Amino acid sequence: MDFSLRILGSSSALPTPERFSTAQVLNVLERFFLIDCGEGTQIQFRRFKVKTGKLNHIFISHLHGDHFLGIFGIISTFNLLDRKHPLNIYGPYKLKGLIDTFLATFDHTLGYEIKYHALHYDDGLTLLFEDDKLTVESFPLRHRVPTCGFLFKEKPRLRSLRKDMITHLNIPIKELHGIREGNSFTDIEGTFYSNEQLTLKPPKARSYAFVSDTAKLEKIVPLISGIDLLYHESTFADEGKKRAKQTGHTTARQAAEIALKANVGKLLLGHFSNRYKNLNILLNEAREVFPHSYLATDGKEFSVTV
Amino acid sequence: MDFSLRILGSSSALPTPERFSTAQVLNVLERFFLIDCGEGTQIQFRRFKVKTGKLNHIFISHLHGDHFLGIFGIISTFNLLDRKHPLNIYGPYKLKGLIDTFLATFDHTLGYEIKYHALHYDDGLTLLFEDDKLTVESFPLRHRVPTCGFLFKEKPRLRSLRKDMITHLNIPIKELHGIREGNSFTDIEGTFYSNEQLTLKPPKARSYAFVSDTAKLEKIVPLISGIDLLYHESTFADEGKKRAKQTGHTTARQAAEIALKANVGKLLLGHFSNRYKNLNILLNEAREVFPHSYLATDGKEFSVTV
Repeated sequence: MDFSLRILGSSSALPTPERFSTAQVLNVLERFFLIDCGEGTQIQFRRFKVKTGKLNHIFISHLHGDHFLGIFGIISTFNLLDRKHPLNIYGPYKLKGLIDTFLATFDHTLGYEIKYHALHYDDGLTLLFEDDKLTVESFPLRHRVPTCGFLFKEKPRLRSLRKDMITHLNIPIKELHGIREGNSFTDIEGTFYSNEQLTLKPPKARSYAFVSDTAKLEKIVPLISGIDLLYHESTFADEGKKRAKQTGHTTARQAAEIALKANVGKLLLGHFSNRYKNLNILLNEAREVFPHSYLATDGKEFSVTV
Repeated sequence: MDFSLRILGSSSALPTPERFSTAQVLNVLERFFLIDCGEGTQIQFRRFKVKTGKLNHIFISHLHGDHFLGIFGIISTFNLLDRKHPLNIYGPYKLKGLIDTFLATFDHTLGYEIKYHALHYDDGLTLLFEDDKLTVESFPLRHRVPTCGFLFKEKPRLRSLRKDMITHLNIPIKELHGIREGNSFTDIEGTFYSNEQLTLKPPKARSYAFVSDTAKLEKIVPLISGIDLLYHESTFADEGKKRAKQTGHTTARQAAEIALKANVGKLLLGHFSNRYKNLNILLNEAREVFPHSYLATDGKEFSVTV
C-alpha cells in the first residue's frame, strides 16, 4: 500500500485504553504525515510500528487537548532518538508559543530544527506543503476554536512504460523518463512511435481529506468533491444531534450526508464520544445515507484507492 | 487495603504500550495522591479504575517529559468532568509557567482552582502537605535537573478500643474518642480503669518513599531509614552502570544497596530502560543484595504493611 492511512486514535475528549485521542499517520509513497496528535501518540507509534524516521510533517487541526497534547512527548522523544533532520509542524499560531515555553523547560537544546508553520483561516484551500508527489492544503472548519481540515492530493502520476515496446525497440535508458512524461520516440531508421504506442494510461492520482472537529459544514463540499477517502468526525449518533450542535460537532449521519454530497469514494467515521461503547449505531446511521462508510478505530489501516 | 500503591507507569524515557512513563497512585485511607504523571496517565486512570474524584494532590518530581507530560491532559479532563474542588500540584516552579501558558490556549476558564506549590531543594526533609492522617515531605535527589523524592508518613494511629470492656462497663459514646487518645475511665461506682485495660496497642504507622530519577545517593539513607515501602528508580542493570552514572541514574543493585542500608521493609524497582525486554536481570541483581525486592510494573498494586 503506497497511499494508506493508519488510525492511531479515535476517541473524542476522553481517551481510554481502547480509544486513544485523535491521531493518524498518512503514508504517501513512504513519506509519513502525522495528522493530529492526541496524548499517547508516541505510544501508538510503537504499538503500530510507525516509521518515525520518515515522519517530517505534523499537522495540528486545533488546540483542544485531545488533538495536540501528544506533540510534546514526540518532540522530546525524537531528540532522545538523536533526530537530526528538521521537523515541520503546521498548526494554530498559539501552539508555537506553547512549544517554545515547553522547550525552555528542557535541560538541553534540541538536536534538530522545528520549522513552525502557522495555519490561516481564509475561505477555501490554502497550500501548506508541496513536493514532487503531492500537495497538502488546509481549509477552515466551524468549531469552538479556530480549526482546520487538511486535504492531501497526489499530483498527476506519470504514464507507465510499455515494457514490451521499450525492449523491442531497444530504447536507451536516458530516453525513458521523457517518454513517461509524454515524449514520442523515433528510432535510428527514422520510424516514429507516438507516446500512446509506448506508454499506458497512468493510475489516477489519489486524495484524502481529514475533516477534524466541526459542526456540519456544507461549504466544504466543493473543496473535497470527488476525493477518494474522507475522514469526517462523527462524535455523536442521531440521539446526540442537539449536543453535537451545541458543542460544534457532527453526527455520523451528518458526516454521511457530506460524503454523499461530495461524492467521495469512502467515508471514515471517527472521534467517537465515549458514551458509545458499541459503535454500530453510528455506523448503521451513516450507512443509511452513505453505504461506503467505515469505523476508523485505533489500529485500523485503510488503503487509499481510486 | 487502606494504604496501597498502584503503579501506572514503569518506563524510563521511552514509553511503550506495555510500560507507560512514570506515574503512581498512593491510596492512604481513600485519599489519593498522584506521584509523577507521564504521558498517558489519564489513560491508565481508566485502565486501572483510579478514583480521580478523590485525587486532590499531584506531586511532580522533576521536569523531564516522562515524569510530567500527562498533567495537561489531566487538568483538561478534570475540567470536562466538571470538577469543582481545588487541585494541588507540587512541582518545580517552572512547571507553573508551563501550566499557565497551557491554560491560556484553552477556549474557556477552568471550573476549579489549581493551587500550585513550588518545590524547594534544601537538604533534608521539607514538609509539603499535612492533614490529620499523614504528612508528605520532599527531599532533594541528584539528577540532571532539579529533582525531588517524596516521603509519605502516616501519623501515629490511635489505640484500638477493647470492645469487650467498653460493652461490659457500658462506657458512654462521648468518652470513647478520649479513651482512644489515651484517657483512663472511672465508672459510677468509682472503680478506676487504666487506658491499658480499655485499649489495644495501635497498629504501627506506615510509610512510603518515592525515589525518582537519581544517581546513587547515600545521603538519603537517614531520611528513609526504616520505612515500610521504598520505590527507587532502577533504570539499568549492572551492565549499564557506566551509563547510569553518565545520565544521573541508578542500577537495580545500587537501589538495593540503598534499601539495605536504610533497612526498609520492601523495595520496588521501576523506571526501566527500554533496553530490558525481560526485567528478571534487574530483579535478580537487586535480590542478591536485598531479597525483598520487587518489580513495579504497570498495573501492579502493593499494599503498604508494617
